[in-house]
Amino acid sequence: MADGAGLERLSAYLAQEIPLTRAMQVSVDDWDGQCLAVSAPLAPNLNHKATAFGGSLYALAVLAGWGLIVLRLWQEGLDCEVVVQSAEVEYLEPVNKRLAARCTLSDDKAWRKLLAQLRRRGRARITLHPCVPGTETDALRMRARFVAISR
Amino acid sequence: MADGAGLERLSAYLAQEIPLTRAMQVSVDDWDGQCLAVSAPLAPNLNHKATAFGGSLYALAVLAGWGLIVLRLWQEGLDCEVVVQSAEVEYLEPVNKRLAARCTLSDDKAWRKLLAQLRRRGRARITLHPCVPGTETDALRMRARFVAISR
Repeated sequence: MADGAGLERLSAYLAQEIPLTRAMQVSVDDWDGQCLAVSAPLAPNLNHKATAFGGSLYALAVLAGWGLIVLRLWQEGLDCEVVVQSAEVEYLEPVNKRLAARCTLSDDKAWRKLLAQLRRRGRARITLHPCVPGTETDALRMRARFVAISR
Repeated sequence: MADGAGLERLSAYLAQEIPLTRAMQVSVDDWDGQCLAVSAPLAPNLNHKATAFGGSLYALAVLAGWGLIVLRLWQEGLDCEVVVQSAEVEYLEPVNKRLAARCTLSDDKAWRKLLAQLRRRGRARITLHPCVPGTETDALRMRARFVAISR
């Protein structure tokens, strides 16, 4: 599956299966096989301080990690369910423009381990580090653990 | 301020200031001065597995903690901004009915410390433990650190 096809498929999947992503107006922006970039306009994701709502930033970052795993599994032709199991999140800067999150799969060894475990046990975990880039530093940093389960 | 008045004020505040809470259809259900209960219907908060979206569960739990602090500060007549600074979240059970989160202020000493620091420095932190009760265990457990800043 070409990167562009995966991106379109993920967009359609999100819009259809997770209605809150429509309310947030999440857009799947870029996927190069290694890094997934997603974003959403500020207006539907505002908080009481006219910056991005912490719940929206969290959801967008989780979606960047979750979407990355889903896209990679589709590339492998594997039919799995992927869910977030736990996460640690730090808010370092307020966001007062379009919300943008990205997640990179930098650890190829972790990915090969996940595939091997999935094939052997039908279930595997992986930890990813999505982030929301800010101006001085990251606006949000996350460590999230996902589980993939073969269907 | 009576508990019922705080509850109505918080409902109006959320609906006006945080548009995503309207999309999630968050309702502020109960406040007894110590414990805040919030909830939201499943339909707008579904994921691809027809259970509650992890992003919605997180947002609801954060709102339970955030709302508790806001309500208590209103009771004290203090005008502050409250934001979430960091959180750790664990998903223990899927949620396949109305999402319900609650947060209890069990540590009165921590609250008195927050008030003293706010009055002295204009800024104070507090850690709370909102949760989403499940059937066998909690569906979600959270440890969240908030900061309150005098306006």
